[in-house]
Amino acid sequence: MLGLMQDWPLLMHRIIDHAALYHGRREVVSRSVEGPIHRTNYAQVAARARKVAQRLARDGVKQGDRVATLAWNTWRHLEAWYGITGIGAVYHTVNPRLFPDQIVWIVNDAEDRVIMVDLTFVPLLEQIQDRLPGVERFVILTDAAHMPQTTLRNATCYEEWIGAVDGDFAWAAFDENTAAGLCYTSGTTGSPKGVLYSHRSNVLHAMIACTSGMLGLASSDVVLPVVPMFHANAWSLGHSVPMAGAKLVLPGAKLDGASVHELIVGEGVTFSAGVPTVWFGLLAHLEATGADLGHMTRTVIGGSACPRAMSKAFKERYDVQVMHAWGMTEMSPLGTVCTLKPEVAGLEGDAYFDLMMKQGHSPFGVDMKITDDDGTELARDGKVFGRLKVRGPAVARRYFRHENEEILDADGYFDTGDVGTIDPNGYLQITDRAKDVIKSGGEWISSIDLENLAVAHPDVAEAAVIGVAHPKWDERPLLVIVPKKGALSDPSAVIDFMQGKIAKWWLPDAAVIVDEIPHTATGKIDKVTLRKRLADYRLPGF
Amino acid sequence: MLGLMQDWPLLMHRIIDHAALYHGRREVVSRSVEGPIHRTNYAQVAARARKVAQRLARDGVKQGDRVATLAWNTWRHLEAWYGITGIGAVYHTVNPRLFPDQIVWIVNDAEDRVIMVDLTFVPLLEQIQDRLPGVERFVILTDAAHMPQTTLRNATCYEEWIGAVDGDFAWAAFDENTAAGLCYTSGTTGSPKGVLYSHRSNVLHAMIACTSGMLGLASSDVVLPVVPMFHANAWSLGHSVPMAGAKLVLPGAKLDGASVHELIVGEGVTFSAGVPTVWFGLLAHLEATGADLGHMTRTVIGGSACPRAMSKAFKERYDVQVMHAWGMTEMSPLGTVCTLKPEVAGLEGDAYFDLMMKQGHSPFGVDMKITDDDGTELARDGKVFGRLKVRGPAVARRYFRHENEEILDADGYFDTGDVGTIDPNGYLQITDRAKDVIKSGGEWISSIDLENLAVAHPDVAEAAVIGVAHPKWDERPLLVIVPKKGALSDPSAVIDFMQGKIAKWWLPDAAVIVDEIPHTATGKIDKVTLRKRLADYRLPGF
Repeated sequence: MLGLMQDWPLLMHRIIDHAALYHGRREVVSRSVEGPIHRTNYAQVAARARKVAQRLARDGVKQGDRVATLAWNTWRHLEAWYGITGIGAVYHTVNPRLFPDQIVWIVNDAEDRVIMVDLTFVPLLEQIQDRLPGVERFVILTDAAHMPQTTLRNATCYEEWIGAVDGDFAWAAFDENTAAGLCYTSGTTGSPKGVLYSHRSNVLHAMIACTSGMLGLASSDVVLPVVPMFHANAWSLGHSVPMAGAKLVLPGAKLDGASVHELIVGEGVTFSAGVPTVWFGLLAHLEATGADLGHMTRTVIGGSACPRAMSKAFKERYDVQVMHAWGMTEMSPLGTVCTLKPEVAGLEGDAYFDLMMKQGHSPFGVDMKITDDDGTELARDGKVFGRLKVRGPAVARRYFRHENEEILDADGYFDTGDVGTIDPNGYLQITDRAKDVIKSGGEWISSIDLENLAVAHPDVAEAAVIGVAHPKWDERPLLVIVPKKGALSDPSAVIDFMQGKIAKWWLPDAAVIVDEIPHTATGKIDKVTLRKRLADYRLPGF
Repeated sequence: MLGLMQDWPLLMHRIIDHAALYHGRREVVSRSVEGPIHRTNYAQVAARARKVAQRLARDGVKQGDRVATLAWNTWRHLEAWYGITGIGAVYHTVNPRLFPDQIVWIVNDAEDRVIMVDLTFVPLLEQIQDRLPGVERFVILTDAAHMPQTTLRNATCYEEWIGAVDGDFAWAAFDENTAAGLCYTSGTTGSPKGVLYSHRSNVLHAMIACTSGMLGLASSDVVLPVVPMFHANAWSLGHSVPMAGAKLVLPGAKLDGASVHELIVGEGVTFSAGVPTVWFGLLAHLEATGADLGHMTRTVIGGSACPRAMSKAFKERYDVQVMHAWGMTEMSPLGTVCTLKPEVAGLEGDAYFDLMMKQGHSPFGVDMKITDDDGTELARDGKVFGRLKVRGPAVARRYFRHENEEILDADGYFDTGDVGTIDPNGYLQITDRAKDVIKSGGEWISSIDLENLAVAHPDVAEAAVIGVAHPKWDERPLLVIVPKKGALSDPSAVIDFMQGKIAKWWLPDAAVIVDEIPHTATGKIDKVTLRKRLADYRLPGF
């Protein structure tokens, strides 16, 4: 027997309509790509999003068609999201920092019919447009006064493009499982794969993000998403901030410390979100100028781990709570946020920062477990670590164009490729990437834990740990060190230094000195390359 | 094109499983019907709910079957809800305060197969069980030590009933639109009608309720639902509090001021919810004892309007924010909560209380509009009032057993039967019931506004306003007065008193004195009866 409640599909347009009707005069402030600060509000954003939808429909864009954006966080990008999804088309956020070849590959894989592009990235697209035969039109996100000379075919000025329709347009009606957004994972190996969000997954994800255990957004908040909209759905902020009716502050192209600080103080930002790199710049600016952070009380840091010193600096100098978040593109992306449950609310000093170094706990709507390689669930004791697997209404079940490739386990969980512990209070700590874990005699050793220990040695500039073959134990850890200038003639001194600080069987079997440890484009240690470079290395005695 | 996200149906059991896994040791404290305070936690509630499910399945209860509860707010009632829905059966909350004849009618209409009943209501059921032929078993919510002598057929002790199974039971799997709960509206006219909630509607409603613009629940809260679980889904608290992972304090059968106060202070309650009657008792207790409200910071008041004096007493004497809520059984039930948006956050004194007398604003997930009798939408200017209509995933589209009777308008909105204004900030103010509005020359006059004005006259004990026939204006207001003892020989003095305080054409055409104004069982003015009594009344001059 079915219930007798209304059929009210969870559609993206309902978010911006709600914001327009109940928080219509709430500001949406952007640093425009053209330069000046631009002010609008949710009522206007919703009205202009309808124009985007109407214009796309007039141009023949249909439900299911992909429309790419190469754009910074601005009000126009936000309008584009809601306009594209308002006719059932799919916003495809392209990361403009990728190599041109990758962009070509992704746009062609997605079969984008239209690309909406900021002024910044027009030269990039001019360079590759001949390799993007499927793109019919390039809409340049600017007004007539700033429209550049460009060789892009069918180059169209955004403001004139939407200015040609009247906005008298009803959102299309369709199933809530209709595709809404497409974002490619930047896999380090293999081709990128598209994650295809639905209206339902985006709306539920935003509802989850709004709750107090996650981002805890309120209409009284002023939210600065420094995380780009082309990064994993901007951690939901393009959806959850309008849903909560909070003021939205969009930083455009300027993510340096001074520019971000100007917005934080000038607009009364209470809540921000971004990767550690941006916050390094902001903290350096504050140091240099002696400025403070105004009304800001909390910031979410994700993408990579927030250094403890950064968390302490925010808390102790500026009274800002840093909340780790963890997730991935395949999860829409939020999986955990490190907010304080009653069990840990009283922690102070080191114990507080120990906790805040964890990735946080899952909300209702994200199921999480850790397992061994056989899929057996492991204890939530904060010690045992295993493969981290997740399930939920905003977690991918397939990749775009790979609909026949199963990526879930028998219980419907997706393997994140991360390895971690879950403590009895439900707090996750990522200990490694699954492919970087060293498997020694059936037990797992965290390469990251060893690296963190090694870099505490005063003569070590950087350290990496990889597994190398061992006839008895399968793998054993090898410590790779870049010493500080002139120091450290004997690398085994670092292993001695690590003695007694970890289980004996975790100690690296050997240490080698190198001139340089390779890094990925995003600044992480590139262990694939490192392992290749050391492929011929043999442990002493073998 | 559909998205490629996981199929994760919104099912009730996910709420209690999440609470058990992430907030497992969070307390669920109840004043037991047997007397003592009882302590358990979400892990145990979830485990015992599985036993309820397992036992119901063993007893042959099937998906779609109805299981009634006549019970106070206790941990056992909570377990029953999740256990019943965990096999796809339907919890049917029966209001034990109804007349026995009404209970007989409702239980038979619902075709309840099992009734789970508190000790308090065993005598009531003994008296009517012969008229409930479809009920196969009565499960008495107590332990063996407290099991009463009873004539109820197949009377079973709850603790022994679930003690006979081991709890090794997997929740059933089914569509999220499957029926989960049934609650009858206590219509003043006609037979009661059942509202049939689904898993989806209950889960979405709880997600909405958790957000900061609504109840704003956090795991750090300690929530006391004084509103009974048999009243309109307990305003979502049986779902939203476990979802948020907050401590739950259940008052059992004792709702007097002293008992409620003991729980508030003893358990550290931060948030409570109930009808004004209960809070009158609590405030009187505080007055008498000089006690305070401990950690309580906010309380939601619904069911009927909170008197301004009560709101002021809570705020000024006890620093507790009273938030009006408005909704109805057909809305799961929450429609609005009067939380503060930035536009009104700075209000103080009278302006603050003026706002807090409003019913509040809608969250994402509740669409609301006011219309005239023809269905034309009216302005959101805080002045024009019209029929209040709502739409959303937790709003009814049909009544149980009335599946063929359309109750929505062409846009899918349900007519609430209330009349109100919506101001430019989105705050709703209920001005009347639609059937009590006086329609004068095509314009509407609020009977409630006139009554509130009239009772401000020093000689008036109680006042009611009804419409009476008028040959030119269709209807005109008649003021009906119960004077204070010995006072007020000329009732038209009250109309004079109202002069200048409202629009001239709103002034009642006449006033009459009566000994008594009739009331409904819930204490509201019974205008149906009043209109009957005055059916022969003619306005002066006609």
